[in-house]
Amino acid sequence: MYETYQPLTPETVIDYARQRPELADIFRPGEALESVEVGDGNLNLVFKVWAAAEPDRTLVIKQALPYVRLVGESWRLPTDRARIEAQALEVESRLCPQHTPKVYFFDPVMFCTGMQNLNRHIIMRKGLIDGISYPHFAEHIGVFLARTLAGTSDLVLDYRTKKEEVARFINPELCKITEDLVFTEPYRAHERNLYHKELEPQVLALQADDALRAEVAVMKEKFMTEAQALIHGDLHTGSIMVNQEETYCIDPEFAFYGPMGFDIGAVIGNLFLSYASHEVRTKDEQKRAAFRCYLTDTVIALWQVFVREFEQVGWAHADPIDMPRAYRDGYMLRLLQDSAGFAACKMMRRVIGLAGVADIRGIEDVHERAIAASLALNIAVPLIKQRASLTQIDDLVAIATAQRPTYPYPS
Amino acid sequence: MYETYQPLTPETVIDYARQRPELADIFRPGEALESVEVGDGNLNLVFKVWAAAEPDRTLVIKQALPYVRLVGESWRLPTDRARIEAQALEVESRLCPQHTPKVYFFDPVMFCTGMQNLNRHIIMRKGLIDGISYPHFAEHIGVFLARTLAGTSDLVLDYRTKKEEVARFINPELCKITEDLVFTEPYRAHERNLYHKELEPQVLALQADDALRAEVAVMKEKFMTEAQALIHGDLHTGSIMVNQEETYCIDPEFAFYGPMGFDIGAVIGNLFLSYASHEVRTKDEQKRAAFRCYLTDTVIALWQVFVREFEQVGWAHADPIDMPRAYRDGYMLRLLQDSAGFAACKMMRRVIGLAGVADIRGIEDVHERAIAASLALNIAVPLIKQRASLTQIDDLVAIATAQRPTYPYPS
Repeated sequence: MYETYQPLTPETVIDYARQRPELADIFRPGEALESVEVGDGNLNLVFKVWAAAEPDRTLVIKQALPYVRLVGESWRLPTDRARIEAQALEVESRLCPQHTPKVYFFDPVMFCTGMQNLNRHIIMRKGLIDGISYPHFAEHIGVFLARTLAGTSDLVLDYRTKKEEVARFINPELCKITEDLVFTEPYRAHERNLYHKELEPQVLALQADDALRAEVAVMKEKFMTEAQALIHGDLHTGSIMVNQEETYCIDPEFAFYGPMGFDIGAVIGNLFLSYASHEVRTKDEQKRAAFRCYLTDTVIALWQVFVREFEQVGWAHADPIDMPRAYRDGYMLRLLQDSAGFAACKMMRRVIGLAGVADIRGIEDVHERAIAASLALNIAVPLIKQRASLTQIDDLVAIATAQRPTYPYPS
Repeated sequence: MYETYQPLTPETVIDYARQRPELADIFRPGEALESVEVGDGNLNLVFKVWAAAEPDRTLVIKQALPYVRLVGESWRLPTDRARIEAQALEVESRLCPQHTPKVYFFDPVMFCTGMQNLNRHIIMRKGLIDGISYPHFAEHIGVFLARTLAGTSDLVLDYRTKKEEVARFINPELCKITEDLVFTEPYRAHERNLYHKELEPQVLALQADDALRAEVAVMKEKFMTEAQALIHGDLHTGSIMVNQEETYCIDPEFAFYGPMGFDIGAVIGNLFLSYASHEVRTKDEQKRAAFRCYLTDTVIALWQVFVREFEQVGWAHADPIDMPRAYRDGYMLRLLQDSAGFAACKMMRRVIGLAGVADIRGIEDVHERAIAASLALNIAVPLIKQRASLTQIDDLVAIATAQRPTYPYPS
């Protein structure tokens, strides 16, 4: 066992894995192990480790780095987020095991978590970039959202547990990243923003829009104050592993007690980012229309599944006198409107802010990239501004499908 | 020093006071001390202790009981609330010393707090019952609310401190009392409710009103999820000590991170309870009109002072790009509407629920008491139902002054 923190390497992780008693069911004493570092996130080292003789006997060992990888060692980050992630996975496993990777161990000295290697799955964002549909995704993510969100809220937990959980999942440093990168920097001139000069006129117009910034501030306030449920906190399509049969939500290191709509909005916003990207990624009109139809159908279906499931896992516990139908309906409507607002913020930050998405930033041609980015912004702005008028999920999708890119600008 | 918890008596508290080193400035070694137990709350012993030779050298020693006094030993309550109260007083003293009693010590073994004896002040509720006006109250309470609420919110605290404070002030048991007594029991048949049979038709109609219960559920959800500021949590006129010059807010044992409107609404709701009570308490029409005018002017003025002060202590810290004027105005409007909703819940619970107010329950004549109670309910219901339409404090007051009692019912 390691007694002090040190970053692992593809070599040392093998020795580390051999020493973990929890892995005795996976690896045999003395057998040859292999490993590779595959982390493409910003905050962690991620090693895949497997038995050389039988690669299906495998796990992932994820180690928290004490700084933001993308920015460098100057941006320090407490490794406590590894505890948060392990404990959030534990909660999610209890509530929704079918969509949560199995956790083998958490090592509070090395800030390492050993978990299921989802080696038959790919990052959903990559699949969406390639125009691949996942027919069960809407059902799976709707169930995951409803079970994890309702199941950690006041609707299900007793008053004391809920409040103790709020304290256990206080996650200041990672929340601060979201507060800055999602809710602050993209809407003002900021040195960390990152967009191409082609997009500048549209970005400057957006940043000059007082009414928009007022709405973003409302969403930020909600993010900072509304301790509604234990949210994943970073549920974009890069935190979802899929194949044609299964869906897993990974990486809940941003987890804390926040507004449910932030998770729902993260999923919806990322589906709309994909929608915007296929404006240029899919040249064939019929194929583009079909894939976009899959994306918008998925948004509609995941919300319907969420509502259906929430009825079972959330409202089933609610006393109908204390929480009459009008309240329950109003609650779901507020969630829908919150989801629209958070989806919009997630989209704007991905186009204007530091951390872009491969869906759009990966488009090679600058002109095409600007078209997709422009459309993404044009979907986001009415989504947040008109969210109070939404009454059903179709309204939300209708806003998205009605938009066109502003770029190229009329000369 | 006491090494284990034991309830003090008027005799043992003297010995206890002698042993506290923090009181060396107040009491001289060996001099005669006198004491009396004056607690009229539900949760604590409250002793006044003074030097027999010079009664102005005095303090209050407040000890948390491990059960709810009103109900008896069966309703256990953790004495941790004494720590919460002492720490909340410390925060309030820092932000608003002129309206917070000075704390001399907190003893975590005996759950005792030694604090300033406000012996030149009376409980505000008693003064209001007697029809006494406090000309500086609106200014004082407006300042207290703005400084303590803005000063503990995300507007002023850095991201990490705010979240650590949320965890430090987790107060599950006392919040549960409010959740039950303010937001649940009064709106349904419940064995702990307490009202006179004269009022029953109106209470049953109120409890049968689905739309009302839906709005109460929204306020309850806000209370349980919105960690906006460190709120006092029980700021009724029985927690305020006044005279013609000064105002002190005492007893913040219900403090936790909750919605600001709960404190503002507690003050407004209790002023309106006084307003309703003088329907019968003051027989002289001119005197009644004058005192009610004082009460409604106070509601208007305290809100205006709150807004003025909040501008200084809250918004002065806000970046105008991140928080444009439209957001700041919307924030204050939401506070106004929240305050109306919480004021209404506080009023209804005081008429229907377990813990009444002397303003109304102290009216001897059953008939007159029913008139005042009926008016209080008739003010509360539109306050919560119409709160979304309020745009300024005058609207809120206009709702109250437009109401009449339903009792006696038309036969």
